[in-house]
Amino acid sequence: MRYAVLGTGEVGRTLAGRLLELGHEVTLGSRSRDNPVAAQWATAEAGRAHAGTFADAAAAGEVVVNAVGGRVALEALRAAGAEHLDGKVLVDVSNPLAFEDGRPRLDPVESDSVAERIQRAFPRARVVKTLNTVNCQVMVDPRRVPGDHHVFVCGADSDAKQQVTALLGEFGWPAGRVLDLGGIRSARAVEMYLPLWLALFGRFGNADFNVEVHRTR
Amino acid sequence: MRYAVLGTGEVGRTLAGRLLELGHEVTLGSRSRDNPVAAQWATAEAGRAHAGTFADAAAAGEVVVNAVGGRVALEALRAAGAEHLDGKVLVDVSNPLAFEDGRPRLDPVESDSVAERIQRAFPRARVVKTLNTVNCQVMVDPRRVPGDHHVFVCGADSDAKQQVTALLGEFGWPAGRVLDLGGIRSARAVEMYLPLWLALFGRFGNADFNVEVHRTR
Repeated sequence: MRYAVLGTGEVGRTLAGRLLELGHEVTLGSRSRDNPVAAQWATAEAGRAHAGTFADAAAAGEVVVNAVGGRVALEALRAAGAEHLDGKVLVDVSNPLAFEDGRPRLDPVESDSVAERIQRAFPRARVVKTLNTVNCQVMVDPRRVPGDHHVFVCGADSDAKQQVTALLGEFGWPAGRVLDLGGIRSARAVEMYLPLWLALFGRFGNADFNVEVHRTR
Repeated sequence: MRYAVLGTGEVGRTLAGRLLELGHEVTLGSRSRDNPVAAQWATAEAGRAHAGTFADAAAAGEVVVNAVGGRVALEALRAAGAEHLDGKVLVDVSNPLAFEDGRPRLDPVESDSVAERIQRAFPRARVVKTLNTVNCQVMVDPRRVPGDHHVFVCGADSDAKQQVTALLGEFGWPAGRVLDLGGIRSARAVEMYLPLWLALFGRFGNADFNVEVHRTR
């Protein structure tokens, strides 16, 4: 499969690297064509790894992964171009993390979510929110954390969620540990989990944790 | 121990009933002295069970449990009287749940929390936020849900958190499953978990679930 990964930060590079390891073709997209991080990445992983603008990446990918921060996601996706997102699965792993006086804040929060904003702005993209509840190392290697912990998917398009569940399976998340929370509005629930994630990170001092949902059957 | 439980809704009655079972003396507090629900409860559980106003309850209790909704918590606690809260452990199990056009909303959210508002309004109370991340049946009987799932405590006063952890132990939560998230500000994290709880409730169709935090040790 050909993937576009938008964002050359740690999240984007981690996802792109793992997709390559899994045998996929990946274009790592950034704001400018001469982004040195992306260029170096593509050189080091020659063959199935490419670097380019957000638009280059989105044009090349059959599936597009939004791995830029939640606050700049719309801008990056506009640069990617609606015509390169139409009909494609758009995996949004971002969090609405902002900083105010050095303190983490959420923007948007509660009455909206990054994923909903993306879906509204690109109605023909098939947006699936997932993976934002874990650190990027855990995203692509859930075995870093012991136990049968869960990851969530949210989105309007069932087929797109199925496709993303299959991708999560490639990353090491069995289908039984992928919880479908419903439509894209439920992205608010997983984006608002961020403060609890940050509190646990503060308490543990590392990001190798995740939650398992236990229930009475 | 003598407990005040403020609030005669399902949460208050469930907590009060369990405290009685555990051998404690409980005053169930409500807005008015002739609340029929509270009066009936006290009659049915004669001896160690009492009913009264919020002020009657808070005056009688060595520990006060806020089990009214988050949006009316300050009003109920003002009626209880600051003089009856001074120096006491004040266990806040509420959620900032509001409804707008029939949809659940959070108020306050993100820049504040119910527990912080309570602590600011009653600086001499020793506020501990806990249990709001589970249904009231699970609060008092965690074995309803399989697995080593967790509950959280937040608050400025370590001794108060210790005391609440001991109470949680009486309810059936081993100390190892009580995660201390830090000061009262971390109450935002557990209050903002509510949308995820609601999404899971919507998906499962019942409230017998909770999360276990897995981590690499």
